[in-house]
Amino acid sequence: MKHIAIEFEPGFAYALDPHTLRLILKVQKGERFKEIGVLWNNKYHFAKNRNFARMKQFGNDGLYDIYLCDITSYDVRFAYIFLLVRPNGEEAYFSEEGLTEDYDFQYGKYPFFQFPYLNEADVTKTIPWTKDAVFYQIFIDRFKRGNFEKDNGYINQAWDAPVTYHSYTGGDLKGITEELPRLADMGITALYLTPIYKGRGNHKYSIIDYKTIDPMFGTKKDLDDLIYHAHALGIKVVTDTVFNHCGDMHPFFQDVMEKGRDSLFYDWFIIHGDYPRKEPCNYETFSHCSYMPKWNTSNPQVREYLIGIALTYLSWGFDGLRLDVADEVSHTMWRALRRAVKANYPEAVIIGEVWHENKMYLRGDEFDGAMNYPLYRILLLYFALGKLPAADAAGKINRVEYGNTRQANEMMLNFLDNHDLPRFFTECGEDPAKLRPALAALYFMKGMPCIYYGTELPLAGGEDPDCRRTYDWTRKAEHAAFLKALADMRKKLPDGDFYATTEDGILVFVREGKEERAKAYFGSHDAAGDVIFEYDNIKIVKERI
Amino acid sequence: MKHIAIEFEPGFAYALDPHTLRLILKVQKGERFKEIGVLWNNKYHFAKNRNFARMKQFGNDGLYDIYLCDITSYDVRFAYIFLLVRPNGEEAYFSEEGLTEDYDFQYGKYPFFQFPYLNEADVTKTIPWTKDAVFYQIFIDRFKRGNFEKDNGYINQAWDAPVTYHSYTGGDLKGITEELPRLADMGITALYLTPIYKGRGNHKYSIIDYKTIDPMFGTKKDLDDLIYHAHALGIKVVTDTVFNHCGDMHPFFQDVMEKGRDSLFYDWFIIHGDYPRKEPCNYETFSHCSYMPKWNTSNPQVREYLIGIALTYLSWGFDGLRLDVADEVSHTMWRALRRAVKANYPEAVIIGEVWHENKMYLRGDEFDGAMNYPLYRILLLYFALGKLPAADAAGKINRVEYGNTRQANEMMLNFLDNHDLPRFFTECGEDPAKLRPALAALYFMKGMPCIYYGTELPLAGGEDPDCRRTYDWTRKAEHAAFLKALADMRKKLPDGDFYATTEDGILVFVREGKEERAKAYFGSHDAAGDVIFEYDNIKIVKERI
Repeated sequence: MKHIAIEFEPGFAYALDPHTLRLILKVQKGERFKEIGVLWNNKYHFAKNRNFARMKQFGNDGLYDIYLCDITSYDVRFAYIFLLVRPNGEEAYFSEEGLTEDYDFQYGKYPFFQFPYLNEADVTKTIPWTKDAVFYQIFIDRFKRGNFEKDNGYINQAWDAPVTYHSYTGGDLKGITEELPRLADMGITALYLTPIYKGRGNHKYSIIDYKTIDPMFGTKKDLDDLIYHAHALGIKVVTDTVFNHCGDMHPFFQDVMEKGRDSLFYDWFIIHGDYPRKEPCNYETFSHCSYMPKWNTSNPQVREYLIGIALTYLSWGFDGLRLDVADEVSHTMWRALRRAVKANYPEAVIIGEVWHENKMYLRGDEFDGAMNYPLYRILLLYFALGKLPAADAAGKINRVEYGNTRQANEMMLNFLDNHDLPRFFTECGEDPAKLRPALAALYFMKGMPCIYYGTELPLAGGEDPDCRRTYDWTRKAEHAAFLKALADMRKKLPDGDFYATTEDGILVFVREGKEERAKAYFGSHDAAGDVIFEYDNIKIVKERI
Repeated sequence: MKHIAIEFEPGFAYALDPHTLRLILKVQKGERFKEIGVLWNNKYHFAKNRNFARMKQFGNDGLYDIYLCDITSYDVRFAYIFLLVRPNGEEAYFSEEGLTEDYDFQYGKYPFFQFPYLNEADVTKTIPWTKDAVFYQIFIDRFKRGNFEKDNGYINQAWDAPVTYHSYTGGDLKGITEELPRLADMGITALYLTPIYKGRGNHKYSIIDYKTIDPMFGTKKDLDDLIYHAHALGIKVVTDTVFNHCGDMHPFFQDVMEKGRDSLFYDWFIIHGDYPRKEPCNYETFSHCSYMPKWNTSNPQVREYLIGIALTYLSWGFDGLRLDVADEVSHTMWRALRRAVKANYPEAVIIGEVWHENKMYLRGDEFDGAMNYPLYRILLLYFALGKLPAADAAGKINRVEYGNTRQANEMMLNFLDNHDLPRFFTECGEDPAKLRPALAALYFMKGMPCIYYGTELPLAGGEDPDCRRTYDWTRKAEHAAFLKALADMRKKLPDGDFYATTEDGILVFVREGKEERAKAYFGSHDAAGDVIFEYDNIKIVKERI
């Protein structure tokens, strides 16, 4: 067989459950095969005989066609090689030796691939509640003011005035609690709250006291009420967890400012000198913000301190952690955090903020899922900016989807915008007909859709701080019913695998289960099957296989 | 630029030290470029301006040309993209967006690659002593008998009789201690001892008591003597650590045999039924050996127990652990073991037995190195069996070398044979002229050469048990001086990177440092530079760059 490009990385073989191994093989796009399959057996029997499992194509990633199969075995010591059969019957094997015309099965020790033993401790589990989760992200100061008796002193402008970096508008936890029934009606089942802990500024990412609710936002009692009422409505609550850095007014950093190397906390930060100095800044920070000194998570004491805070949050009833600037914190820290969290709160979800390639965090020992920036980038280019042909969008989406495990995909936080990005509605030129298909895409895919507060209006807004405008309570939530309909549609989707493709030039998403298949058409198209959602040019159908 | 295949995985970007990032890019083999380089900066400044670092080609891996560069920065938040320049000046960029003709630097957030923050806790360090280590592996029962006063009862044949699976010939720890000066003279600086703990059989891989020296092999005092004298000669000692399974006579398994589910140790094994049963075997084992029940390392208690044993071994003075059947044990177990070992004995080396793809164990959170089976396979095919053309051997060797970090390569245990494989000398058709270049290859490469006892004679032997023949003390160690000369040569090699290539059809190994380069020619060749080793058709030279 002539040489063809094949991609097969260690991450393409992983456990779905304690007896099932998923295998993904990527084969040069457009090459034709009669079939591609896996020859496999217990590795100690492989030389003697093999089982055969046919692989199924799940779209392409732009460069490679994606083939997939799951093999289940009582004996979990897997040896396997791939068999590729051309339409003319010509065969080739793909093993640790690469692509070869022959394979010497008798020579038992080599060179098959192996998944040497599927140990239960290594199996990543999708947290059950995340499968149905639809998130709503709230930037606290800008969503709703519920407490009119609190000290007003910090509020520096009217609710409806344009916001700046330095605006304080009065939103608080009580305001959120009041809105819970409306959010539940809209199909929301989880909240992601930006930080609520005592800190300077309006966003509270520069924390002074990790265990005190900022008085601008409310009290511990207000938080208890929020969580209590949310849970009563079946709504989970995830807190923003800021462990990359603290605020410079944090007492530990203040201690170092005062005592320098003599401070017990000197090694808790990364300081290039005897004392931290702000101008020019001689200590590690978030970005170039001297008011956000970076924690030294290479120091085990720091890890212990921060993990203690995470466990406190979960003990308060939070259902998960969204880890801020997660990619700049050490992997050592996140592994330790995961161990502590999962030992005590196995159902708590851990979502890391990573703007770029994320697979190094999603192997099962760090985060459950990530904020899905790679996906966002594609949705932005395709739906809002119209800069990608449908086929390219499909390929790129599949590349993202088949770079991680199914479990990670299921726990990914999928969004169109957030407090760090221009509103997707604005990126769409404020055209709701562009926003709606993107929302539908989000609800159809695997992973947890996350709706940024105000999308239901929809709210507009450019780069920060404009993307943090106050919610406009004078307007009708024109998209609320649309979002509710999507949430209802989502419940009808088969629990299968996802891929993107095109039909007649139109972008099509597929969710393929064992007995059912759903397809979402983003464009006018005749589609077979039962319609489970339809709006303008968006049509979602379901059929038995 | 026309489409070309590029390979760039997360593992191709890693820290060499707390301020240096290594980048490896693989570009379709044979494609010509004027230069390939990296545009990089602190990720917060990347939109504004970039540094440029030229990449250097280090051979090819059969499918791709390998390019490499190291970038050092005070600010360790790296953003980077690759620039490829064709001989005609045509340029292309390679970023998270793939290969593109343009790159919009102003659009700062995307789509560069990032190494978001190089945290010191995540930097893998090469243990200093491993850089000079030359190992000697001893299968205890067959090397040398030193104690003639011990109970002879178990010895069931004469030293020079052919060995079977059931032979007991009398080798012991005292015999090893006696030979230490000779081994030191041969350039050996480390021992890998197969298990010495109380167990059934001659190989002791079915352990009954992890903390007692098997009386056939000696006493704790004998071990203390061995370690004391080895250390006095600058020889490290690594013990075989059998944590995948124990012997069925281990008291915990015996307890389960007796009490079934009522045993405190029922969950310490993986039993499919109320009681373990041997015929047909209803519990998980090593291979199909019912006398080797597998530990359930998904159980945290088991992990704690086994890690306690590892720490005991290190407290006895051992310098490292060779983990038996490491690939069938849970990753969760190995991560926990590494944390415990490195916290207490940062200079102890951890080497895992993995016969196939090993990168999932070598990311810095599990093993330091692995038994280098992928390399062995190539050396066997090339040097012993003559089944690979030189260019294919070079490509395959580079594929192995550039699949892991430099640190992992440096701590890899590189061997030509061991107690599980036919003697390389036998694979060579007992032709020493084939064995010698393979040994020279082993000493020239990165990684720790490991010489199987008797190679200095050289000893012959086919598949197990024949590869476990007794050392023949009546013969002269004809290869001892050759091995010593290789060990001396090894000390003169520059501390640079390794790759394999060909010149005039001859296999050539290169070690390229900053100021010096060494080359090993496996075949008759005129070579520039100072000769640092020469024997028959093997020539190793060194030159300033």
